Amino acid sequence: MMKEARVHSFGMADPADVSALATALEAGAIDPAAIVCVIIKTEGNGLDNDWTRVMAFEALSRLLAARGVSLATGDMSCIVSGGCEGVTTPHMTVFERRASNAPAGGASLAIARAVGAPLLPEQIGTLAQVHNVQATVERALDQAQLTASEVEYVQVKAPWLLDHHQIDARSRAAITRAADAHGSKPWTRAACALGVALALKEVVATQVLESSINADWSLFTRRAAVTAGNDHLQCEVVVFGMSKRWTGGARVAHGCLKDLLDSAAIDDTARRAGLPPGRGTLPTAVLFKGDPARSGLLRGERQVMWHDSDVHPLRHLRAVMSGVIGAAIGSTRIFVSAGAEHQGPQGGGTLAVFAEPSAPRP
Amino acid sequence: MMKEARVHSFGMADPADVSALATALEAGAIDPAAIVCVIIKTEGNGLDNDWTRVMAFEALSRLLAARGVSLATGDMSCIVSGGCEGVTTPHMTVFERRASNAPAGGASLAIARAVGAPLLPEQIGTLAQVHNVQATVERALDQAQLTASEVEYVQVKAPWLLDHHQIDARSRAAITRAADAHGSKPWTRAACALGVALALKEVVATQVLESSINADWSLFTRRAAVTAGNDHLQCEVVVFGMSKRWTGGARVAHGCLKDLLDSAAIDDTARRAGLPPGRGTLPTAVLFKGDPARSGLLRGERQVMWHDSDVHPLRHLRAVMSGVIGAAIGSTRIFVSAGAEHQGPQGGGTLAVFAEPSAPRP
Amino acid sequence: MMKEARVHSFGMADPADVSALATALEAGAIDPAAIVCVIIKTEGNGLDNDWTRVMAFEALSRLLAARGVSLATGDMSCIVSGGCEGVTTPHMTVFERRASNAPAGGASLAIARAVGAPLLPEQIGTLAQVHNVQATVERALDQAQLTASEVEYVQVKAPWLLDHHQIDARSRAAITRAADAHGSKPWTRAACALGVALALKEVVATQVLESSINADWSLFTRRAAVTAGNDHLQCEVVVFGMSKRWTGGARVAHGCLKDLLDSAAIDDTARRAGLPPGRGTLPTAVLFKGDPARSGLLRGERQVMWHDSDVHPLRHLRAVMSGVIGAAIGSTRIFVSAGAEHQGPQGGGTLAVFAEPSAPRP
Amino acid sequence: MMKEARVHSFGMADPADVSALATALEAGAIDPAAIVCVIIKTEGNGLDNDWTRVMAFEALSRLLAARGVSLATGDMSCIVSGGCEGVTTPHMTVFERRASNAPAGGASLAIARAVGAPLLPEQIGTLAQVHNVQATVERALDQAQLTASEVEYVQVKAPWLLDHHQIDARSRAAITRAADAHGSKPWTRAACALGVALALKEVVATQVLESSINADWSLFTRRAAVTAGNDHLQCEVVVFGMSKRWTGGARVAHGCLKDLLDSAAIDDTARRAGLPPGRGTLPTAVLFKGDPARSGLLRGERQVMWHDSDVHPLRHLRAVMSGVIGAAIGSTRIFVSAGAEHQGPQGGGTLAVFAEPSAPRP
Repeated sequence: MMKEARVHSFGMADPADVSALATALEAGAIDPAAIVCVIIKTEGNGLDNDWTRVMAFEALSRLLAARGVSLATGDMSCIVSGGCEGVTTPHMTVFERRASNAPAGGASLAIARAVGAPLLPEQIGTLAQVHNVQATVERALDQAQLTASEVEYVQVKAPWLLDHHQIDARSRAAITRAADAHGSKPWTRAACALGVALALKEVVATQVLESSINADWSLFTRRAAVTAGNDHLQCEVVVFGMSKRWTGGARVAHGCLKDLLDSAAIDDTARRAGLPPGRGTLPTAVLFKGDPARSGLLRGERQVMWHDSDVHPLRHLRAVMSGVIGAAIGSTRIFVSAGAEHQGPQGGGTLAVFAEPSAPRP
Repeated sequence: MMKEARVHSFGMADPADVSALATALEAGAIDPAAIVCVIIKTEGNGLDNDWTRVMAFEALSRLLAARGVSLATGDMSCIVSGGCEGVTTPHMTVFERRASNAPAGGASLAIARAVGAPLLPEQIGTLAQVHNVQATVERALDQAQLTASEVEYVQVKAPWLLDHHQIDARSRAAITRAADAHGSKPWTRAACALGVALALKEVVATQVLESSINADWSLFTRRAAVTAGNDHLQCEVVVFGMSKRWTGGARVAHGCLKDLLDSAAIDDTARRAGLPPGRGTLPTAVLFKGDPARSGLLRGERQVMWHDSDVHPLRHLRAVMSGVIGAAIGSTRIFVSAGAEHQGPQGGGTLAVFAEPSAPRP
Repeated sequence: MMKEARVHSFGMADPADVSALATALEAGAIDPAAIVCVIIKTEGNGLDNDWTRVMAFEALSRLLAARGVSLATGDMSCIVSGGCEGVTTPHMTVFERRASNAPAGGASLAIARAVGAPLLPEQIGTLAQVHNVQATVERALDQAQLTASEVEYVQVKAPWLLDHHQIDARSRAAITRAADAHGSKPWTRAACALGVALALKEVVATQVLESSINADWSLFTRRAAVTAGNDHLQCEVVVFGMSKRWTGGARVAHGCLKDLLDSAAIDDTARRAGLPPGRGTLPTAVLFKGDPARSGLLRGERQVMWHDSDVHPLRHLRAVMSGVIGAAIGSTRIFVSAGAEHQGPQGGGTLAVFAEPSAPRP
Repeated sequence: MMKEARVHSFGMADPADVSALATALEAGAIDPAAIVCVIIKTEGNGLDNDWTRVMAFEALSRLLAARGVSLATGDMSCIVSGGCEGVTTPHMTVFERRASNAPAGGASLAIARAVGAPLLPEQIGTLAQVHNVQATVERALDQAQLTASEVEYVQVKAPWLLDHHQIDARSRAAITRAADAHGSKPWTRAACALGVALALKEVVATQVLESSINADWSLFTRRAAVTAGNDHLQCEVVVFGMSKRWTGGARVAHGCLKDLLDSAAIDDTARRAGLPPGRGTLPTAVLFKGDPARSGLLRGERQVMWHDSDVHPLRHLRAVMSGVIGAAIGSTRIFVSAGAEHQGPQGGGTLAVFAEPSAPRP
């Protein structure tokens, strides 16, 4: 029997609105035990005091707990990120993995998930984390019978350093890469991204030194996004690929934007995901990870977002990309996230487009 | 002898940076007496306490005053607007009108300017202002020997109601449309836009009632942008058209976006302005005026910008459109402005793209 | 048997943290059925998209529902307001009313609550609402055997106009005072405040005309705060007084600040609430309602908060008053709220200080 | 002949408004050559993109240049800081030093100014800067014939590290304390504050190690405020003391707040500056420097300003202190500034109150 991956998109009327998913569960359209990953975009500021993430996570927890599924690490990955600046619509994407009676055909979307071995606080942001993530991705590939070249995208949920982790490290006289949770995010994201790059053979091991992390921007993955925020010190990876061993007809394609206005890369990704050029069919899900260039320049022109003390640069970034991607593909259900260390080239980013013909968006 | 219109674009290193224009004046590349209009985008918040507008205006005033040109209404129009959200680059566009020895050829950019008769405070936002603007545009067309159908875009600088205007009105027991300057902006913009629509024969006079203003959104111009902020109660109009009576090869084309993601309209406008599809040549200037839909929906999907109390909806709008337009045409020198009452359809906007082959952007 | 009012203050570690109240309920220190009113200050922006209010309300709902008490209007009043700008500490205050065996003594805190008759949408912000609130306050006074002069403070939870109320009004061709919920808040607050002023005999009925509402600032109550946000069209009033018919030793005193820096009024209120001048004893709860002066002046000096487009004026107001009141009384558990139409003089505000000797704050 | 110090306060109608000072210069009330220091509070956000500082500085430059006085370091110190959050009024304070025929009497305000020797970029934030500032303050004391114990307050204008300083350091393989201007501010402020503390004998030299800077918060001055932003690498100090060698009757007193609500310290400082307790006489100028506690706690209670991603913590701080100080002394002309490393105890701050009987504020 083959396996089948399904992608579902649901709008949310408020940060705790899981009613559309509840309806789908009620109708049997989704098997709660088959959910591999849920990715949610909520409408808060996407910064330090964004409570909408908590609201969404808790609402989803309650919904699934009532059906015997836990959001604890063992069962599935739940990634919640705030920030619907610009034209982004608050929404959630649910990925299912099921056995299928469907006949084999061309390549279909494949999904695999693995959870890494626990890390020590002082390993976050170091080569130890890089290699931990590399091994975790390789394990996921094995499980899904995917080769590195068949992988289109990897979504990583990365740990960060909370106060109790710092206390633990200090009790052993160990030195961490950052003094607080906020400061640890660039480090954990960078290490995870390089781990994916190694697993997908985008860089070679001899290039990746301890001193490369958050320093050598020539090293990057073209096929991953990392979101920091795991309270326990394990890395969760969800791998999306295209494989003839999977069926169902869903598709994924990745793209790598060389800068924030690289609409040609977006067009090409949409095409590879099977969307017709006429823009009549919408994608089921879009994931984007990118950053403004550290130089403050885009195509040689000055930009001011880095110096706007009233609106955080990452809020500017998310608003811009909702427009760039939204105009290219005609949808506002876009998971735009910033903090793209070693994810795409400096000043650019990575993109994944999912198309699910059997479950058109309402 | 024919006339020639030239368009110049200059980056600005800070809100008071007029050094690039100064260099061009010094070199004789621009004749200060020939300047018809300067349009400036500065990097402030584009809201109530945006002092960058003042900085730019005063720096330009000093520069031109030293060359015998005044920014007072008689000589030229100077429009300054804050808000470089997203990827917009602070910059200024200078429009010149000169006599030319160049031979006649195909149609070239034509520019005309006219200043309306003074209004009373209580006329702002009423049919009296609509008809005043209509007459002013018609006068500008006559001067430039342009027909309504040859007009591509009209930029209006509209008066607003300052405290002393309110006092004047009250002294005559006259009632104004709004109690303060901020509240008067939607009214003055709406009336000006409908005046342009009448002059350009986009609507017919019998449709435009007193009660239509800021109410009947089926009435709109596809070819104008109105910026409020004139301290005196006169409307200034600058008309851009394409005419065989003008020479020099500069071009302008307008577009009308049906919603914020209408990249097809942008592509079409760029093409009509003579830009090649391959995106190798940049436009010299881009003007956009638009608003998020009042419904809070875009293509049926919920958006949250109207309810973001931390970042003003118009800041969201400008960031999005810097991305949408920037990705479509490859430039970040975009004059994005919001407050588009009767300027394009509700939830969409109007666009002008200028191409100046003889003066490529540095 | 006499009645006794108790006041409890609990810190909150996050917007949904009701654990301190849960502990008190568990320990039997509070009888859930005796709770008359809960007033919560959460840490969101206190503006349109402040989800922390929802989090607190739902957490409290779940906690009390498990003990048989509903937050629906019948049982008790729950007022949640966001905005801990400056030094304000997120916290909740719980008011209990119990039978008591304690002996009569001097005057003690008395609490009464009443819910008004349902209003029509078109009555919000009109004399009909003024009189409705007047009658409701008078009913509460009767129940608590309080005279108007014994009342120290009235906290009102006012209805606002949601979309379905507007639809209802339009279906009857009735005209409402405001087009949306946000716009209805000044109207509902103003009408409620004037209703309290009438019930407490602070103004006389012949002074209060339809045209006085939000216009004649010489009319105001010195002893009330109104918070808008009731989804049903009923006004809830909670009256706090000092009465010899009540026992227990808790105290309340009100003050009326003539401007935002009127620390003498705060000192006097604290003294009347029984707090010693040495600032060694903290109040159990502090409620403040006030606004910056519409003139933009304080003691003749210019202020800029009304023109700060990046930080809402009411966020400035709350930050300032956390400092003014916090410094005067030494506590940061202050319920500061803005939107004080007819509540205190223009540019000033109203204050209530509660002292509960038997239940010192942890 | 004795010396006399005069203090003048002027309101500002906008960030470039120097008209009140111009009037005083015109009237001969101020001698431009006698100005030692100008301290300006403008109405911008007080953060990275606050252009109001530039506007004020340039307006003052133009005004004084026309009278032969330069704002370059040699002639006088000009300190401009943005942020009129809360109730603070935009204003400037001008300090003059003149010869006087007035008779000797009790102690009067004394002012001295000195400019330090140039530093290297890699010295900023190190013991080298500490000792440089110590020597500079000692030199100023000598000039003004002041002893350390007669000093009430020292205002320091500190250099920061601009890009060209970084380039210079790298060219010599020297390592700077911070990678950019913003990051260099805490370091330069800390070193200057410890330098003052040494000069004023508030700490002893053996306590101040390289590792103490921005680490050992038990070391601090009670009598200084440091503002970063000098483009050249010199420290400017302006010393304010009380001395019988000076005349004129102006007074200054300093205070040290143990936390943000320490109104007793403010009351005491105002009293020592000669202000009557009844609050009838206003101070001529008030300077405050302080920070929220790094713990996020105030008197044991939780505060949220450190986690407010929409409003910068320092904007909260300034708003709070405008209320705390404004209520204590009745004035809104307060120069509130944050970034108080080693200036007052952690979570508190330093204060200076000036009273100028001969030049009452208009």
